[in-house]
Amino acid sequence: MELWYTEKQTQHLGITCQVKETLCTKMTAFQELAILDTLQFGKMLVLDGMVQTTVEDEFIYHEMITHVPLATHPNPQKVLVIGGGDGGTIKQIIKHREVSRAVLVEIDEEVVTTCREHLPEISGGSLDDPRVEVIFTDGLEFVKTNKSEFDVILVDSTEPVGPAVGLFTQEFYQNIFDALKPEGIMVAQTESPFYNRDLIRSVTQRIKKVFPLAHMYLASIPTYPSGLWSFTLGSKVHDPLKVQEFKSLDTRYYSPEIHRSSFVLPGFVKELMEGK
Amino acid sequence: MELWYTEKQTQHLGITCQVKETLCTKMTAFQELAILDTLQFGKMLVLDGMVQTTVEDEFIYHEMITHVPLATHPNPQKVLVIGGGDGGTIKQIIKHREVSRAVLVEIDEEVVTTCREHLPEISGGSLDDPRVEVIFTDGLEFVKTNKSEFDVILVDSTEPVGPAVGLFTQEFYQNIFDALKPEGIMVAQTESPFYNRDLIRSVTQRIKKVFPLAHMYLASIPTYPSGLWSFTLGSKVHDPLKVQEFKSLDTRYYSPEIHRSSFVLPGFVKELMEGK
Repeated sequence: MELWYTEKQTQHLGITCQVKETLCTKMTAFQELAILDTLQFGKMLVLDGMVQTTVEDEFIYHEMITHVPLATHPNPQKVLVIGGGDGGTIKQIIKHREVSRAVLVEIDEEVVTTCREHLPEISGGSLDDPRVEVIFTDGLEFVKTNKSEFDVILVDSTEPVGPAVGLFTQEFYQNIFDALKPEGIMVAQTESPFYNRDLIRSVTQRIKKVFPLAHMYLASIPTYPSGLWSFTLGSKVHDPLKVQEFKSLDTRYYSPEIHRSSFVLPGFVKELMEGK
Repeated sequence: MELWYTEKQTQHLGITCQVKETLCTKMTAFQELAILDTLQFGKMLVLDGMVQTTVEDEFIYHEMITHVPLATHPNPQKVLVIGGGDGGTIKQIIKHREVSRAVLVEIDEEVVTTCREHLPEISGGSLDDPRVEVIFTDGLEFVKTNKSEFDVILVDSTEPVGPAVGLFTQEFYQNIFDALKPEGIMVAQTESPFYNRDLIRSVTQRIKKVFPLAHMYLASIPTYPSGLWSFTLGSKVHDPLKVQEFKSLDTRYYSPEIHRSSFVLPGFVKELMEGK
């Protein structure tokens, strides 16, 4: 018997993966959570029917959401992650020696506990690092109560449905701005330039209204819809396109050359950024 | 009733698209040919169960296989396309005014006639341009009988199964080299760096053995497996990384900046190029 998991990536398009074993399925207080062991991508975290991360390709998303802003900031000491309960982003953050404190704010405690049990490769023990603090609360509320506190904030959210809807609003970006120090930088994952054009247009406009500098960059992630994923970076002072010195980092996708080239947008994506 | 077309992209992975209408299915002398009208990507050409091109995203593949080598060559007058019966590559080639002759060598006449009937948007009338000649024969044989003839040769082939197997061999690349003029350049589509690693390793080694300069570049194409596609360029003299002057071209993906950034490879792809 062959078992296949099909994710409807858009109304008219899906990806289908052969499943070796279903390791876990449950309803948490916030969402439906599943861990599947697939033949193509290894173990996979699925929330509300959408692939969040897999053992095979997680390094791309997590390296790219982390190292681009942390290389742009000259001295990133305090870093906040909103979402990211699988721990993959924290694993990348603690590769930066300047980081003295990394806070993970995850709304759904069961994501963290289930990933620690079934997907320990993704966090790689990073959640036990003494510099790391894990807080289970709503990121929307957390950023309101922290003013001028963080050097970098990473919005490592799920899709803009269910618990993550508020993480794509103007008000939230303003609260992130206020939670950042005067030289602070934020990055948010902002979906596929092929299938989420309206979202990208509106999110870009919102981030541009709040931050003096706003840039989009791209990465190729095979398990995400279209295989091309966007991140939007907002910065108070430091320009990601003008980084001169890069630290040496142990990575498989990110590099100083990729840092620069990821901001080069194809014509049809540039138009989205310009609101067309 | 919902009709869905599922392509098995690897043994354990598929893409599935909702189909509005099946416009054509037939067995040609060489392969199974289908034209589907899908809700996500518009009309789509499928050969032997593999998506070749769609109205929605064809521009990316065709711009990238064409403009990178034609911008690298200082005066591309005679251009050969092997495969590419949909006409999308020819449509891009004739945007270059220096081109005085573009030859399309397609093994399967029915691909050309069926695409002209059902997918006229993709060739955009380019096959009727007076500079264009269409020849129905085996590209493997054609390159053997043409010596020092072309400025640029584009290998716009299907996957390395069925009629295209010979288009990935050392002997073929040597014949391409001989069919090129002393300043000639070739590009071949070389599949996904995620799912075709062995192919990329061996094709790269073969092209490096024949051409003094060999470089890989990448493009994001949502309908191809993994969404990330590789092209390998072999050149006798001109370095694609040292192009100084770019012509103005009407494109939606390619640009001088994309030309340069497409050669920046993520670490794990660079390793493939180095045979690791």
